[in-house]
Amino acid sequence: MANTDMRTGLQLRSLVKKDGTLELSLVSIPTPEPKPEEVIVRVEASPINPSDQGLLFGGADLTTAKASGPADNPTVTASIAPAVMKAMAGRLDQSLPVGNEGAGVVVRAGESPAAQALMGKTVAILGGAMYSQYRCIKAAQCLVLPPGTTPAEGASCFVNPLTALGMVETMRVEGHKALVHTAAASNLGQMLNKICLKDSVGLVNIVRKREQVDVLKKLGAPHVCDSSSPTFMDDLTDALLATGATVAFDAIGGGKLAGQILTAMEVAANKTAKEYSRYGSTTHKQVYIYGGLDRGPTEFNRAFGMAWGIGGWLLTPFLQRIGYPAAQKLRERVAAEIKTTFASAYAKEISLAEALRVEEIAVYGKQATGGKYLIGPQKGLR
Amino acid sequence: MANTDMRTGLQLRSLVKKDGTLELSLVSIPTPEPKPEEVIVRVEASPINPSDQGLLFGGADLTTAKASGPADNPTVTASIAPAVMKAMAGRLDQSLPVGNEGAGVVVRAGESPAAQALMGKTVAILGGAMYSQYRCIKAAQCLVLPPGTTPAEGASCFVNPLTALGMVETMRVEGHKALVHTAAASNLGQMLNKICLKDSVGLVNIVRKREQVDVLKKLGAPHVCDSSSPTFMDDLTDALLATGATVAFDAIGGGKLAGQILTAMEVAANKTAKEYSRYGSTTHKQVYIYGGLDRGPTEFNRAFGMAWGIGGWLLTPFLQRIGYPAAQKLRERVAAEIKTTFASAYAKEISLAEALRVEEIAVYGKQATGGKYLIGPQKGLR
Repeated sequence: MANTDMRTGLQLRSLVKKDGTLELSLVSIPTPEPKPEEVIVRVEASPINPSDQGLLFGGADLTTAKASGPADNPTVTASIAPAVMKAMAGRLDQSLPVGNEGAGVVVRAGESPAAQALMGKTVAILGGAMYSQYRCIKAAQCLVLPPGTTPAEGASCFVNPLTALGMVETMRVEGHKALVHTAAASNLGQMLNKICLKDSVGLVNIVRKREQVDVLKKLGAPHVCDSSSPTFMDDLTDALLATGATVAFDAIGGGKLAGQILTAMEVAANKTAKEYSRYGSTTHKQVYIYGGLDRGPTEFNRAFGMAWGIGGWLLTPFLQRIGYPAAQKLRERVAAEIKTTFASAYAKEISLAEALRVEEIAVYGKQATGGKYLIGPQKGLR
Repeated sequence: MANTDMRTGLQLRSLVKKDGTLELSLVSIPTPEPKPEEVIVRVEASPINPSDQGLLFGGADLTTAKASGPADNPTVTASIAPAVMKAMAGRLDQSLPVGNEGAGVVVRAGESPAAQALMGKTVAILGGAMYSQYRCIKAAQCLVLPPGTTPAEGASCFVNPLTALGMVETMRVEGHKALVHTAAASNLGQMLNKICLKDSVGLVNIVRKREQVDVLKKLGAPHVCDSSSPTFMDDLTDALLATGATVAFDAIGGGKLAGQILTAMEVAANKTAKEYSRYGSTTHKQVYIYGGLDRGPTEFNRAFGMAWGIGGWLLTPFLQRIGYPAAQKLRERVAAEIKTTFASAYAKEISLAEALRVEEIAVYGKQATGGKYLIGPQKGLR
């Protein structure tokens, strides 16, 4: 199925069937003629982020995954539980492309000067359908990478970097002076730690394992709390007192952690309060849940007064809220610091066909810290 | 202990001792000389609101309540569980006055024209320590009741009326077009229902018992959902679709109700959505928890996309947020409609001494719908 010209390209597709089956496959699609304002990017690298996996797997039970077909054009099927199928109503029987972001080289351009100016440039792009050999996209959506940057280095310019910057910006916009982050040893967490060190912003890192404390300590993080430690609540309260953090970004979602953070924030707030308030501290305490590493229910005891909030946080609405000029500033910072602050590490680079191998799915589907994969859509095809 | 002049007055006090004992008693305190801007109100009526009970009982286990002393000057003691005592650290060994709001007659006034103008007037007041025979308060804090209004009629001018109006205002300020209310057959809920009918605001009432549906239906409520019904989630979704409500005010707090409301809001939002969004609907869905009728943990499954929030809601910060002129408009509306929209009903009127009877505490401590008590601080003393 390898193709040697640009007229068609492979694209990874995810299909949820009415009968409760997920089907992953590669399809060959014609490369469109770019409109005046558009370019064709030959995608060279695209990460598999946690935020891609919801669309990719449709909530399927990955232990049921089975492959069929030839090695260079496999099909993978897996079962989706009936309870999960309810949430899939909107995407039933639609073959959907996947992949939020990536980077590659502009190989064709529409007539407009903006598009023509990008010919031959290495660019980072965001917009879905990146697990494809070729992606037609507006020139204005391309972030030109600094000379000497490879597509692999620029593949993760948006989701993690803008999410990390977005957390710090949200903290500022909403009047908090420091922040808390959970699952903090993740690729995103390490990036946030680098930003906070560089910008002198107080950050309380929460991790779930002892060895992850060391990872962050080695990166210079002043406050790392291990939620598996018996002294966790005291450690967290001390770190909150030291930093004054009153907003948290939580990737876990399920379980008691969000409530524990609010409880510790309340204890910290009351340690500095001057008089008894029957409704608890008047300091607003906020947890934003932006991920669901624990898919179980969220549970909390409301032992933190009345000035609190828990809510969802998502990058795109945040960028819309701050407006294009402010968002563009963040993007330009990412491009400028892509080899330092915003550098990403990958456990492995795989081809589109390898992304559909059951043994690879078993690894990258785990979303384990340090286990991020990069798809090279041109790999194994040339 | 009856007193016939104004030089001293009885005041109800709540004391949490270090040993884990709650002590309720009446003390005789000197009536202060009013400053130029102040007046002395002879308190005639003050309700026992759910919001008073936290301060009054200090989280004590009311089944352990014991009375001692003479009938006209009893002392009540009860035990507080060690886990609850942690939250009492700020009030230990302080004898605290209780009672958020009330109404009475101005019997003495400071020299200022504003204070003098209130002499003899029947006024409603908010500010704590209302379970007292006499309350010294700034003239500016007095809401003059329309002629012909009794103190009993005006005793509940603030907490419930302003909370109900505050919910509707919050809905408007935050861009929602209709609202949901739980424990909706309560005194507050009936008031909110009257406001919404009068102002043509969509309201979805959620109650926990079949008979409460009838109470609200009789009052003309178009949407009443019974959370004990097997068709609750469908009924709620239909009512949300009919009204477009995307914000809820929840008095229950514990359990799964807050999450159920967000889930039904998401289902309603997706019924009108045009295309599949992997992150759920982009409609922001909000639940404000303003009470804790269920003191157990709050639990939810996050099956409602990313555009959601759950948080605490409290009257005082809301009034501060909208500013004095806007808040004053709400207060004046309450005074004008105190016998209609904002009329309160009480199960019983008791004296200060009767408020400390174990058998009365067993009733009003339950916070049952239709079981609200009114304290008459002058009762049994003249």
